[in-house]
Amino acid sequence: MNEVPASIRLIPLPGLPEVEPKTDLAALIKDAAHAAGIPLAGNIVVVCQKIVSKAEGRLVPLESIDPGEEAREIAAAHDRDPRQVQIVLDESRRVVRRGNGVLITETRHGFVCANAGVDLSNAPGEDIAVLLPIDPDASARRLYEALSEPDAPTPVIITDTFGRPWRDGLVDVALGSAGLAPIRDDRGSRDRAGRELLVTQPATADQLAAAAGLLMLKSAGIPVVVVEGFPIEGDGGVRQILRDPATDLFR
Amino acid sequence: MNEVPASIRLIPLPGLPEVEPKTDLAALIKDAAHAAGIPLAGNIVVVCQKIVSKAEGRLVPLESIDPGEEAREIAAAHDRDPRQVQIVLDESRRVVRRGNGVLITETRHGFVCANAGVDLSNAPGEDIAVLLPIDPDASARRLYEALSEPDAPTPVIITDTFGRPWRDGLVDVALGSAGLAPIRDDRGSRDRAGRELLVTQPATADQLAAAAGLLMLKSAGIPVVVVEGFPIEGDGGVRQILRDPATDLFR
Repeated sequence: MNEVPASIRLIPLPGLPEVEPKTDLAALIKDAAHAAGIPLAGNIVVVCQKIVSKAEGRLVPLESIDPGEEAREIAAAHDRDPRQVQIVLDESRRVVRRGNGVLITETRHGFVCANAGVDLSNAPGEDIAVLLPIDPDASARRLYEALSEPDAPTPVIITDTFGRPWRDGLVDVALGSAGLAPIRDDRGSRDRAGRELLVTQPATADQLAAAAGLLMLKSAGIPVVVVEGFPIEGDGGVRQILRDPATDLFR
Repeated sequence: MNEVPASIRLIPLPGLPEVEPKTDLAALIKDAAHAAGIPLAGNIVVVCQKIVSKAEGRLVPLESIDPGEEAREIAAAHDRDPRQVQIVLDESRRVVRRGNGVLITETRHGFVCANAGVDLSNAPGEDIAVLLPIDPDASARRLYEALSEPDAPTPVIITDTFGRPWRDGLVDVALGSAGLAPIRDDRGSRDRAGRELLVTQPATADQLAAAAGLLMLKSAGIPVVVVEGFPIEGDGGVRQILRDPATDLFR
């Protein structure tokens, strides 16, 4: 992006029906966009993971879970449902932090977040947990392929809201991406004074996720936002921006 | 925001001249917006900290610095300029992590970031360090008051690009804010199934910062972005979203 776009527009997609397992999510998004007169060609579609997970059937009834000893111990210490804790542990590589009723883990994908992204809110029933997609980059790619037309790509980002260290509040981050580079490599380019910019690598997918998150308030029921005007470059999955543990100062 | 806006537009502000110490930044922004036909009334102005710091004269010539023993030791271990390290230490409460040539500290404000936000790129001369504003919330409030018209507020967010644990790449975050609530408290509201949402607190200021960051690529020289269409609520500084160390699992 050497030329700056005149503007970027974030458009909430209205009219999406409730998503059920085996729903054809790409077809729902296409129909809703068509009905609302919102073009998808050349634009970016940002999708909340919850509806992706539901469409993929990533739902677990709590009553199906028989919590083990570790889950019971953590649940007792933090006033949690041991069945939910068991699901979180099953979805995790390791527990990163525990405290204040919060369980922060590293998911099997490598995301560090509360409860391994397992959620009860907006689930189909009180006792159903919604898990993250098994492979959010693959989910994004399937949607990208189904939404794109020949010569008119529609990149896809799948997002979730994460807390972060040191700051209160949640921001939306990218879990999966396809059809655009999740990170922009400006290393080697120069600043306005001609000095080389050594470490400027904007995490484009996460910036787009946060931007779309401005319209994805849970209470408003907007799980899809279309981004218009952002110059599309490259192609890759979010997996490539998960930091290598060997160079991560926070492991 | 119970009603969802039809869209949000992110508009880069072109035509800003180079900012010098004692520049009247609000006047520059007003003039540039007027020349470009971009209304400020009722919109949010997102400003890169670099030009705020320059206008406030937060510039330190490296030749004025006599590095102490700790700075020399750290600089030697990480192949850095000891004078720059001394400035970073002077701006910091504590060193959070060291390694891979990176020095992550907690600034006097309470931000955790690389090099206490001290930067050499885009500085007026090769040997000038640009420091963060002394009180970014106060800087934002001064701009907010100067940009707002009676009955037509123009909230202001001052941003910088930060790395983060566990993920590569940089995202823009809010350092200061005025004229809008930096965090939205949805606790007590209900999801679509009527269940209470317990912990949904979007960090609005940071989501806006990241959204604006999509247009603030350093090489493009766009330090101000106007956000149109986002419903403005509340008023507060970023300081209120810095996590209380007592409840922070990452201290």
